[in-house]
Amino acid sequence: MNQVLKEKLATYQNRVELGIDQLLPSASTRPERLHAAMRYSMEAGGKRIRPVLMIAASELFPAQADPLAAAVAIECLHTYTLIHDDLPSIDNSDLRRGRPSCHTQFDEATAVLAGDSLLTYAFQLIARHYVNEPALATCLINDLASASGSQHLIGGQMEDIDNEGQPIDADTLRFIHENKTGALLTAALTMGLRFCKPTEQQLEQIEAVGYHIGLTFQIVDDILDATSNPQALGKPVGNDNAAEKSTYIALHGIEGAYTEAKMHTAEALAAAQALGGNNAFLLELISDLEHRIH
Amino acid sequence: MNQVLKEKLATYQNRVELGIDQLLPSASTRPERLHAAMRYSMEAGGKRIRPVLMIAASELFPAQADPLAAAVAIECLHTYTLIHDDLPSIDNSDLRRGRPSCHTQFDEATAVLAGDSLLTYAFQLIARHYVNEPALATCLINDLASASGSQHLIGGQMEDIDNEGQPIDADTLRFIHENKTGALLTAALTMGLRFCKPTEQQLEQIEAVGYHIGLTFQIVDDILDATSNPQALGKPVGNDNAAEKSTYIALHGIEGAYTEAKMHTAEALAAAQALGGNNAFLLELISDLEHRIH
Repeated sequence: MNQVLKEKLATYQNRVELGIDQLLPSASTRPERLHAAMRYSMEAGGKRIRPVLMIAASELFPAQADPLAAAVAIECLHTYTLIHDDLPSIDNSDLRRGRPSCHTQFDEATAVLAGDSLLTYAFQLIARHYVNEPALATCLINDLASASGSQHLIGGQMEDIDNEGQPIDADTLRFIHENKTGALLTAALTMGLRFCKPTEQQLEQIEAVGYHIGLTFQIVDDILDATSNPQALGKPVGNDNAAEKSTYIALHGIEGAYTEAKMHTAEALAAAQALGGNNAFLLELISDLEHRIH
Repeated sequence: MNQVLKEKLATYQNRVELGIDQLLPSASTRPERLHAAMRYSMEAGGKRIRPVLMIAASELFPAQADPLAAAVAIECLHTYTLIHDDLPSIDNSDLRRGRPSCHTQFDEATAVLAGDSLLTYAFQLIARHYVNEPALATCLINDLASASGSQHLIGGQMEDIDNEGQPIDADTLRFIHENKTGALLTAALTMGLRFCKPTEQQLEQIEAVGYHIGLTFQIVDDILDATSNPQALGKPVGNDNAAEKSTYIALHGIEGAYTEAKMHTAEALAAAQALGGNNAFLLELISDLEHRIH
């Protein structure tokens, strides 16, 4: 990543960090253990890619309101999925971003409830903050709930679990990636653009951007997991392979995965170009996704 | 319960059952195991007290829209709490309403994800069905998310878990009951009244009804749990005592609990009287709550 983009990204990330700190209940809110667990997982870092994409999309055209509360909401949603995915009954991961995962740091019951709380809070944040823009609020909530529901995000996670330890075909792998990872990334962009009162055509264009970003993101993640070191990832390397999880690498090999990542990056860039507006930052973010593997 | 009320209640319950069947994704929706689990728990029966209360409240004054989708949404929300509460890491209950609980019938990972899906779907249902009444949708979502969030429903569950196996004081017991049970019952009424474009005063009055109904409901539940038989309850009797859970009985004894239940019923009736409108059915429902223990 070049220095200019790095600094620009950092200002967006800082805005998100500040939003998280300001908009989440304090860790001393009753019950303290629950709110401490929510903050522990929300403050674990990460690149804040979904809220940053949302804000970038909201800046494509003039926006009717500040997208920060919605950006924090999508990070709450994303963080709840990590907490529940790490549970012993699901992926059984003790580490997340180099720290003990929520159920390891607290306990399993607290982690279930902290995840439930962050999921619920995502919708509360949007309904409360955009109460004076109710048409916007309703669209944002519909986008977020649909993308993260049983037919998309959770459905992708379910099929991922169901296919562990067995050979996987390209269709199933695509279903998992499009839904488990792709749907929420697409929602981040769609929700951002909602702030600009978009046309139907613009919504279709941003969905195409999201679709290809989502696939790039997952393929790059699979490549990094197969080739990186644990310090860089903050989780045990080869974790996916160890549990015989379905990855692009298992299906296409490293070289095939590289080719797919490049193809989807090019498609995402083309769709963002077609959308127009102030898309310079969005184009840079898309290009950078693929560069993570170089 | 008298025969007339019984039949009237049955027509409301049937409307809710039909709504659940029509509004939930079919069990054959991909991924099938997940949607089968969602429907399994949603179709397990129960009295549908929350959706019925919501519809009853929506009928107090002329309503601007059909409350059925919101009524199904609150039942989705309630059902998710039962699925997660039954998990081995929380209450570890194998039975729910006389049938295997969700994680027993399916498996633990599926139960976590089915609960997450129903929670998410509650908000999606409201946002989608009232998209043309966005001010109403935003209020409904704010009510539901606030009542079921970390400072109310989930917070009550967290304190309940934290206080297991130790003596409990009246303040903590009240916090647990007001939040774990009371908040969602109050939200059912408040959300119902939202359909009638209520004044601030009417909202305060319906909140008072919900507050006292919530406490009555929990005290009656504690009395039934201490005195009933497993067939009547559909779950192991003395379960709460066995785990040394905090109940009104432990704190006030059976007689004290009866007295409290009567007092809160009277307060709920008084608040519903003050509210006025077509409150005959609501008054009957409140009276019946207390009669469950006779």
